[in-house]
Amino acid sequence: MSEIQILEVGLRDGFQNEKKQLSLEEKVFFAEQLAKTGLKRIELGSFVSAKWVPQMKDSKELVTHILNKQKQGLLDSQIQFSALVPNQRGLRDALETGIKEIAIFLSSTDSFSQKNINRSRDLAYQAYKELCKKALKEKLKIRAYLSVCFECPFEGKVKAEEVLKWVKKIKDLGVYEISISDTTGKARPQDVNNLLILLLKHIPKEKLACHFHNIHGMALSNAWVAYLRGIRVFDGSLGGLGGCPYSLVHSGNIATESLLYLFKGSQDPIIPKLLTLAKKLQKKFQKKLESPLLHSPYYK
Amino acid sequence: MSEIQILEVGLRDGFQNEKKQLSLEEKVFFAEQLAKTGLKRIELGSFVSAKWVPQMKDSKELVTHILNKQKQGLLDSQIQFSALVPNQRGLRDALETGIKEIAIFLSSTDSFSQKNINRSRDLAYQAYKELCKKALKEKLKIRAYLSVCFECPFEGKVKAEEVLKWVKKIKDLGVYEISISDTTGKARPQDVNNLLILLLKHIPKEKLACHFHNIHGMALSNAWVAYLRGIRVFDGSLGGLGGCPYSLVHSGNIATESLLYLFKGSQDPIIPKLLTLAKKLQKKFQKKLESPLLHSPYYK
Repeated sequence: MSEIQILEVGLRDGFQNEKKQLSLEEKVFFAEQLAKTGLKRIELGSFVSAKWVPQMKDSKELVTHILNKQKQGLLDSQIQFSALVPNQRGLRDALETGIKEIAIFLSSTDSFSQKNINRSRDLAYQAYKELCKKALKEKLKIRAYLSVCFECPFEGKVKAEEVLKWVKKIKDLGVYEISISDTTGKARPQDVNNLLILLLKHIPKEKLACHFHNIHGMALSNAWVAYLRGIRVFDGSLGGLGGCPYSLVHSGNIATESLLYLFKGSQDPIIPKLLTLAKKLQKKFQKKLESPLLHSPYYK
Repeated sequence: MSEIQILEVGLRDGFQNEKKQLSLEEKVFFAEQLAKTGLKRIELGSFVSAKWVPQMKDSKELVTHILNKQKQGLLDSQIQFSALVPNQRGLRDALETGIKEIAIFLSSTDSFSQKNINRSRDLAYQAYKELCKKALKEKLKIRAYLSVCFECPFEGKVKAEEVLKWVKKIKDLGVYEISISDTTGKARPQDVNNLLILLLKHIPKEKLACHFHNIHGMALSNAWVAYLRGIRVFDGSLGGLGGCPYSLVHSGNIATESLLYLFKGSQDPIIPKLLTLAKKLQKKFQKKLESPLLHSPYYK
């Protein structure tokens, strides 16, 4: 049984969903602190237009800074940093920073694709085809997010066969990992089980990750069922910050510390470090984060 | 595969953990409304001394009122009402109301038993032995709660063998169902799985229920694992109200509506009725309840 891997997405999927924008210095602080917790995979930001997602406007500076620190030996050399890349311009930025891994994102439904990135699934796919070719030539690792794999806020239930079709297409792009996302947090363990049974007939389990939202409280039971099916990579967000602005709710990421509790146990040494950071996030954003461990008397 | 049963414990395990005491009229309102949601098992209160648990002081009046309404055909005749009975005096009260089911409570550890009911497990057991004999003679159904089946706030991890020992002893009292309780909410799916594998070697699955607390966000994944092991009865509390005052935290019950979502799906007709009531509870107690569905934009 291979080890659980957790991809921390708070600096991207968390920050981009907050109205309040942090300064570059604040982002650097959280990125460095996260890199010192012991987490091995961290998504730093998104090389997206500042007009489109202003919270991500200094991702290039942040990535450059963090990679420099890592090169200097000041951050664990084992940490795999990544950033989202929506287009060729983003790829150019990514390459200039020297980052080794990028992430692309597509949707299982057309309506969500239109709302999320303002173009159809097919057009987005075609554009990513070119981009991935170039990225692979530059020896970048590519991860993909596939949104709304269970229910779409605009189209309702998504058929497992439709998800499979897009997973296969995305695999053909040369990505090493596809994160199956429950964007609306509506999936239940039964749904996850059924979808994974189908996907795993066609895709090796090492190529799949899961990205669950906790809007309806189902994320951890879904993660557990995915684990029972052999999935070992899960996306989490420090303190449960963030979610998706196009699924009616600006919250819902599963907290990274919850995933650690589930898979590694209450004594995992990374948990208290994350809680310390999550408390700082609560102050920064002046809001209570939903992460249960943050409010447990056993972690006080 | 038998049907899922949910026991609603909010009127007892919820109300008794709130500082603010509701009036008898308010309790009647919530009890009647709950009985009209479609739920089939409802714990109405506790025949405990008012000195000990003042929130439960009018349980006798509440139970009498509700059973009368049921007799008059104003509430579904299929609903199984129950109430906690701590001692002979409580049993006398129960018999006077004509209630058909009582619940007793014991702990897997001595320290918790001392803190919770001020006597050792053995003494409590001996007293319940007499009580159960009398109750069975009176044709009452008896349910038992077994507290701290995973971790005790005072003694730490509880051995599965110890839990088994007490489950067996409790079964010998003639109870028809034993609710395995994760009082501190520290259990993980692995723990639940391991304990149930052991228990089910000795106890028929129909005799077991599960009572999970969500303090660490694990309750639904634990419920799902218990379901996979054959458990079909789960305790929940409207809105997630309540928990246990002796486990360091006054909250943590899993919301009944979350259990319905998990087992029956987002469209279950009972869910919106529970959410309407839970919103009223929030107003009554002037606090935000943790139940995720209460805060989901998909239920607005």
